[in-house]
Amino acid sequence: MKKTFQLFLCLCLMQNVVVAQEKIQHIEPLNWWVGMKNPALQLLVHGKNMTEFTPHINYKGVTIKKVNKVENPNYLFIDLLIAPETVAGNVKIVFKNSKKESFTYNYQLLKRQSKSAERIGFNSSDVMYMITPDRFANGNPLNDNVPLFKDSLNRKNLTGRHGGDIEGIIQHLDYIQNLGMTALWINPLVENNQPKTSYHGYAITNFSKIDARFGTNEDYVRLSKEAKKHGIKLVMDMVLNHCGSEHWWMKDFPAKDWVNFQDSPKVIYSSHRRESLHDPYAAQYDITSHSDGWFDSTMPDLNQRNPFMATYLIQNSIWWVEYADLGGIRMDTWPYPDKNFMSVWSKRMGEEYPNFNIVGEEWSLNPSIVSAWQKGKVNKNGYVSYLRSLMDFPTNAALIEALNTDEKVWNQGLVRLYQTIANDFVYANPNDLVIFPDNHDMSRFFTQLHEDYNKFKNGMVFLLTTRGIPQIYYGTEILMTNPKSDEHGEIRSDMPGGWDGDKKNVFTNTNMSTAETNAKNFVSTLLKWRKNTPVIHSGKLKHFAPENGFYVQFRYNDKQKIMIILNKNNEAKTLDMGKFKEIIQPTFQAKDILNNQTIEVNNSLNIAPNSPMILEITEK
Amino acid sequence: MKKTFQLFLCLCLMQNVVVAQEKIQHIEPLNWWVGMKNPALQLLVHGKNMTEFTPHINYKGVTIKKVNKVENPNYLFIDLLIAPETVAGNVKIVFKNSKKESFTYNYQLLKRQSKSAERIGFNSSDVMYMITPDRFANGNPLNDNVPLFKDSLNRKNLTGRHGGDIEGIIQHLDYIQNLGMTALWINPLVENNQPKTSYHGYAITNFSKIDARFGTNEDYVRLSKEAKKHGIKLVMDMVLNHCGSEHWWMKDFPAKDWVNFQDSPKVIYSSHRRESLHDPYAAQYDITSHSDGWFDSTMPDLNQRNPFMATYLIQNSIWWVEYADLGGIRMDTWPYPDKNFMSVWSKRMGEEYPNFNIVGEEWSLNPSIVSAWQKGKVNKNGYVSYLRSLMDFPTNAALIEALNTDEKVWNQGLVRLYQTIANDFVYANPNDLVIFPDNHDMSRFFTQLHEDYNKFKNGMVFLLTTRGIPQIYYGTEILMTNPKSDEHGEIRSDMPGGWDGDKKNVFTNTNMSTAETNAKNFVSTLLKWRKNTPVIHSGKLKHFAPENGFYVQFRYNDKQKIMIILNKNNEAKTLDMGKFKEIIQPTFQAKDILNNQTIEVNNSLNIAPNSPMILEITEK
Repeated sequence: MKKTFQLFLCLCLMQNVVVAQEKIQHIEPLNWWVGMKNPALQLLVHGKNMTEFTPHINYKGVTIKKVNKVENPNYLFIDLLIAPETVAGNVKIVFKNSKKESFTYNYQLLKRQSKSAERIGFNSSDVMYMITPDRFANGNPLNDNVPLFKDSLNRKNLTGRHGGDIEGIIQHLDYIQNLGMTALWINPLVENNQPKTSYHGYAITNFSKIDARFGTNEDYVRLSKEAKKHGIKLVMDMVLNHCGSEHWWMKDFPAKDWVNFQDSPKVIYSSHRRESLHDPYAAQYDITSHSDGWFDSTMPDLNQRNPFMATYLIQNSIWWVEYADLGGIRMDTWPYPDKNFMSVWSKRMGEEYPNFNIVGEEWSLNPSIVSAWQKGKVNKNGYVSYLRSLMDFPTNAALIEALNTDEKVWNQGLVRLYQTIANDFVYANPNDLVIFPDNHDMSRFFTQLHEDYNKFKNGMVFLLTTRGIPQIYYGTEILMTNPKSDEHGEIRSDMPGGWDGDKKNVFTNTNMSTAETNAKNFVSTLLKWRKNTPVIHSGKLKHFAPENGFYVQFRYNDKQKIMIILNKNNEAKTLDMGKFKEIIQPTFQAKDILNNQTIEVNNSLNIAPNSPMILEITEK
Repeated sequence: MKKTFQLFLCLCLMQNVVVAQEKIQHIEPLNWWVGMKNPALQLLVHGKNMTEFTPHINYKGVTIKKVNKVENPNYLFIDLLIAPETVAGNVKIVFKNSKKESFTYNYQLLKRQSKSAERIGFNSSDVMYMITPDRFANGNPLNDNVPLFKDSLNRKNLTGRHGGDIEGIIQHLDYIQNLGMTALWINPLVENNQPKTSYHGYAITNFSKIDARFGTNEDYVRLSKEAKKHGIKLVMDMVLNHCGSEHWWMKDFPAKDWVNFQDSPKVIYSSHRRESLHDPYAAQYDITSHSDGWFDSTMPDLNQRNPFMATYLIQNSIWWVEYADLGGIRMDTWPYPDKNFMSVWSKRMGEEYPNFNIVGEEWSLNPSIVSAWQKGKVNKNGYVSYLRSLMDFPTNAALIEALNTDEKVWNQGLVRLYQTIANDFVYANPNDLVIFPDNHDMSRFFTQLHEDYNKFKNGMVFLLTTRGIPQIYYGTEILMTNPKSDEHGEIRSDMPGGWDGDKKNVFTNTNMSTAETNAKNFVSTLLKWRKNTPVIHSGKLKHFAPENGFYVQFRYNDKQKIMIILNKNNEAKTLDMGKFKEIIQPTFQAKDILNNQTIEVNNSLNIAPNSPMILEITEK
């Protein structure tokens, strides 16, 4: 009898294991941690007729608060409470139905890494390198093509996959560190199992899984650890606005309102009229078509007003921070998801990680719109955001215009740049803005500057000395261009040396042109100097309105003064130092950073044509 | 004995009268009023060695609080207190010196007009006509040349005086009223006794006196009275930033700091870097050169930080409001005087006249800068302004760009206008902004529109139906152009019919082209309709982001709905009404204002090519 019972029990347990694997198609978050600030956790459990089952937990500190059923019987959303003193371990969740059938899922509650909550996000002491991973380096050719992934390797195709991967980035962390970078933003690495143009990563088909063609979740964690060893904070590119049309839930929607225009006979595409979100006269029509319209036919627009979707996305973001030990998040298409959700999302992230940082992409050239999203901004409409950083598209546009236009025309040239920086009064914290020469969505900096290296130098010196957090796209340090067109595939061209057989190799300095090497050395010199010059990170800024083709900024604190001069004159020209007497005596000794020499300045200074100059003042 | 004493007294009085005229070269304000909110009054008294004399007053309610001496012995600044119950009359100010010499000045304290303090300034129920008085109409040829005024009549010279005057404006108030105007801004009429280019009025040589070539102070009061009879509020153009180089005090400065760069070997000219006033990183160098630099070599920059200058200017402004019964002030070069003074000045004006209105000229295309000056704006730097209205240069630029650029290009065309209006969240009160097609400092609207009448109609309908207070420059209603150049003299050309012998006459409708007559009738129809349509003055606004070449605004309140359609398509096109269902049913009856007919709208509407449409909805 006893034996029979044991056998029965054994069979039941075995059966349960089998049933659990069969029953549960998805459970997310994949795991969780004890000791999070927010004790609540909502599990999404997806499996055929899951609502027939009721979950039970017997684990000290873990209680089921509510089991939520939604329109689709294949989903349960289980609300757990994890008490602060809960010990890490496997939480057995026993699912039972009315027919006395049951199965058990072992849900892992892990211990957090030491000081996880206090992690420091990227900030103005950092410079962020940006990589499109498919185009940077192919470290593991074995994952170039993966079974069941439709979009396979085709390096000849601009929109095809070229084979770059996480391993390729890990192999070149030395290069990135040696350049002087301290943070790394990589375009999304999570699964994009779309039939084509999947390389860019913004059509996510699984929010919790690294795309197999880039590597594994474990590879991503390894990258994070290796990056940390190289003094580099890993910044994850996230998308909350949309998923890929091949996302698994597109075949089995939890609810009727999981995706906007889900059952609509005709999908509306986003109007991109971001103005409507701030506009005191906005028609609901415009707000809806901007926020709920799809970004693209392959990118269904998620409905963050559905509370289960909202919680799913918040938890997924926290999961990645904790799982991969992130040093920051770059949030795609900031103004496109529901704006009230983004307020909640950013608040929750800040509550969990008060020293962390997130940068939102608001591609508007209007600083009033960009600034409305920043933490600390007092908006007239009462909207509160908790987002610390924004991509500074207005300064990007102003920089390029400033470098390309004529100093002799009223309100052109460097004045455009001065005006943009002077406009910082609209921001709550301009030093948290991410500034950049270019990114994956626009023509390469050197192309936009008509391949003028003097402009490049002036531009780089500006970006690496003014307020904000600089970000540089891979290859921009070697004057990468897109001369044929501004198609995304042209912009995101392969990093030379990233592929076996590449004749030109930036990593080994093989077959590089003198111009490319000079540019790389120039950028690297600047970056390394910046890294060790705290006054650039957090010092005060004072600038002087451009005159006679010169734009002068000072970065200063009680200990140090740096004078940054941009000269856009075609001839060598003398800069009178008397003008700056409110901050510096006209006679001083300084280190000329770019030429690595000490100079004596005596009332005036002769500046080389079309050149920047950085003076670290050493003596009055 | 008694007789002798009387004779002596008589001689003394006579002598005093003679002395008073001889002694006092200037006393300002020219008079004052009892019952002002602020009981303080400071008299500027100017005359040879005036500091030798001490003033005495024996008038019930009037006391001398302090007699201020400054660096120049020829000036006294007498602080008076006028108690609230003081009765109007002549206040005898007896000036005595230590040699027992004395003289008496009869200073007039007048009774205020009824409800003077409650006067209503121009507002969004008004449309303001703007006139350059030298170029509008020569009503009195006798004042074309005036002895001692150096710049004499020369109608052939673009920068010369053409003879227009106050009398000319008075004679054509019927025209202005019939056009539908309810406010009138005239470029400065006060004395500009400069050797040349004096016609524009901005180089003031006497702040309290109408230029004799325009008329007299009494003529100006007459204009104000006549305008009021025509339902027109008189708006005075004032300048606090600078005076004319021939101003009387330039020959005998009260103080060393009366004018900026007064004793400087080299005058600095304004950098016009208005950004520096808001810039968190501003160098004092830039603030000083912007605010204290001279506007022009003929326009010395007044130092409003001198407290006597500050009080002089404040009192002069109040004096004109009270003296000429003004309905508003247009303040020239708003960001150029000391910004703290402008805060005080605007506060003082608001305290004295809480329902009055003043519009400041801030010629910046950056709404963040324009909005920083508006009353109610919460500025991050703590700056408080009490200025209700600003010239809306950003919308002016956007309107012209919107009309001139291609609808088919992303973010061009009408979208520019939509974006600018949607940006109103930066303003404390956008409905108080003054909007305009052009003014005396820029190419004529029709010239900027490449003489395209359809653009003109779309533009005028926009300006006369959107939020704000419209202002129209004289002649713009008859498509006046400046085809040769954008020199000021070309822009400010003579109004046809304003001079005896003019063959073309807009006032009598003689020899006008069909296009000119049509434009005038179009503008006039719009103005008269606007005048009687309160929902345009104060109704809510809802607009829809432009699509397919259409930009649609609604003005509405509980009682009324107006639909305004701008069509920039080159062909007739159908507008689907379903899009607007949040504000109006797709089937309705309406009055087509521009074509003066009733129409039935049934789900869609066919709009004529490149044409505006105004629908006053009469029935759902």
